[in-house]
Amino acid sequence: MNLVVGIDIGGTKTKIGLVDKNGNCLEKTFFRTQEFPDLDNYQNKIKEEIDALIAGLDFEPTIIGCGIGAPNASSKRGTIENAANLKWKGTVPFLEKFQEKWDIPMRIMNDASAAALGELLFGNGRTMTDFIAITLGTGFGAGIVANGQLIDGFDGFAGELGHVDMTMGDGRLTGLGVKGGLEAYVSATGLKRTILYMQSQYLDESRFRSVAFNDLHGEDITKAAEEGDTIAIKAFDYTAKIMAQALANFTAFTQPEAFVLMGGLVNSGKWILEPLEKYLDEFLLEVYRGKVKILQSGMEGKVAAICGAAALIWEKNTEK
Amino acid sequence: MNLVVGIDIGGTKTKIGLVDKNGNCLEKTFFRTQEFPDLDNYQNKIKEEIDALIAGLDFEPTIIGCGIGAPNASSKRGTIENAANLKWKGTVPFLEKFQEKWDIPMRIMNDASAAALGELLFGNGRTMTDFIAITLGTGFGAGIVANGQLIDGFDGFAGELGHVDMTMGDGRLTGLGVKGGLEAYVSATGLKRTILYMQSQYLDESRFRSVAFNDLHGEDITKAAEEGDTIAIKAFDYTAKIMAQALANFTAFTQPEAFVLMGGLVNSGKWILEPLEKYLDEFLLEVYRGKVKILQSGMEGKVAAICGAAALIWEKNTEK
Repeated sequence: MNLVVGIDIGGTKTKIGLVDKNGNCLEKTFFRTQEFPDLDNYQNKIKEEIDALIAGLDFEPTIIGCGIGAPNASSKRGTIENAANLKWKGTVPFLEKFQEKWDIPMRIMNDASAAALGELLFGNGRTMTDFIAITLGTGFGAGIVANGQLIDGFDGFAGELGHVDMTMGDGRLTGLGVKGGLEAYVSATGLKRTILYMQSQYLDESRFRSVAFNDLHGEDITKAAEEGDTIAIKAFDYTAKIMAQALANFTAFTQPEAFVLMGGLVNSGKWILEPLEKYLDEFLLEVYRGKVKILQSGMEGKVAAICGAAALIWEKNTEK
Repeated sequence: MNLVVGIDIGGTKTKIGLVDKNGNCLEKTFFRTQEFPDLDNYQNKIKEEIDALIAGLDFEPTIIGCGIGAPNASSKRGTIENAANLKWKGTVPFLEKFQEKWDIPMRIMNDASAAALGELLFGNGRTMTDFIAITLGTGFGAGIVANGQLIDGFDGFAGELGHVDMTMGDGRLTGLGVKGGLEAYVSATGLKRTILYMQSQYLDESRFRSVAFNDLHGEDITKAAEEGDTIAIKAFDYTAKIMAQALANFTAFTQPEAFVLMGGLVNSGKWILEPLEKYLDEFLLEVYRGKVKILQSGMEGKVAAICGAAALIWEKNTEK
């Protein structure tokens, strides 16, 4: 049986799994990324984990390749470049180094682009030629599918939509120094910043008056909204409104049939999704109105990133 | 000899030409669009002009198709929808009606997308797989090429970048009702609006203090800048800065290798291009810096739109 190794490199966890042609993750594991600050040790650790996963199967698979999703990865150059949440600084020739340890077809890609490819092959993108996958976690990631293909960009860095400026340079700072950058507003972290902002703007009583920024958690904001905390409700509305402005702008770019949302912020459910739908309908140009869907990921949450990474290899193997 | 008919439908002029496989326009003509408010008469007029162009050749060509560029055209549906500058309102089934008069392969596309395809086949896009063509005339039009293909969008309306909101809904109104829409700032018309704005903000003496909005012309603004008129120079700087913010945002989307500029505003030359280059370098994310070129169209200005329209057919005929 042919299998692909899917690896998702995150700032916190590195997830590894074995994925079949239908996007089923047969075996999976993870370890803490930061425990291996040395690239060489890190890659050895990955290889060990892969070998252990394969040994754990009750059959002998054929591993046809290894797909990797990582922040700030260039698909065209096989590198990870200046990733804010990873220990390796500068330009890391990740693929070249890993290939020295394991001679197998490999691809690497920005994690959000890998997620989009996962949706295209295995998830809610299967029936679409034009959609944008959006990951709403610590940051705002995006993978763009148009004309039935993932858009790579000239240099492999397309889809950095968390850093588009929404304010003509006059807003919140992102980690990459963009003033008014989208992810400073629309992400799990952006929502927390908005909880502070709303307290600065209004006099409403709120449970968050006695919570410091570093102690704020996304789930608590959802819970507060459910309990009628008006600072939380205002924060969701503000976040959804800016997200709708961004999605209306993105629609004018590649005119996707749908936005496929995933990541922590989506777990807030109706608190973010209902105002998002309302504002998007308001902001879309008439020519697009009623034609753009908001969907949630069609992938199982826990293995979505692994399957997305594996899709990099399955995409190139049409004879499965 | 195989030839393609290229038609550019503009609010003012309708241009028609015969274009060979290398993008040479052998014969061309035009008439005033507004003289034919009735669609049926308009299409008959086009057909007459085409027949006259063909009759004027000193050889018998084979016409292999007809490509049409028009504002607000859907490539997927063959329609022109709610075009602000055309007399025909609502959704016009342009291709279907024209095909009743002339049974030949036909395609229609948004004019800026047709311009992008012209660049891809015949102009400065020939060596690129990822670029964005931008027309800076009355409005701001865009055609997006990624992965070597023109991006159509789900419904054929990709690339309406003149109507992305730059200001979180808090700026100038565009003709389609977008507050803070890009073309309200960055277009020949946007520049004129900025001449007024700068007079409202500053006390500088200026030749424009005695010119009404309706008497303002783009060439005069360039001339004034050359003469040291500080209102004109400030207006160019302001326009270039917002354009650079937009291009930095667009780069984060499909990561083009270049922006290919065309249209009236580009004729202002260094007054717009020099500050544009400066600000773009400032606004680009580090991962993109130094990798994005600003180019001017590689097509001859007078026939660029005709050749772009013809490219819709030549693109589909690889055996030329």
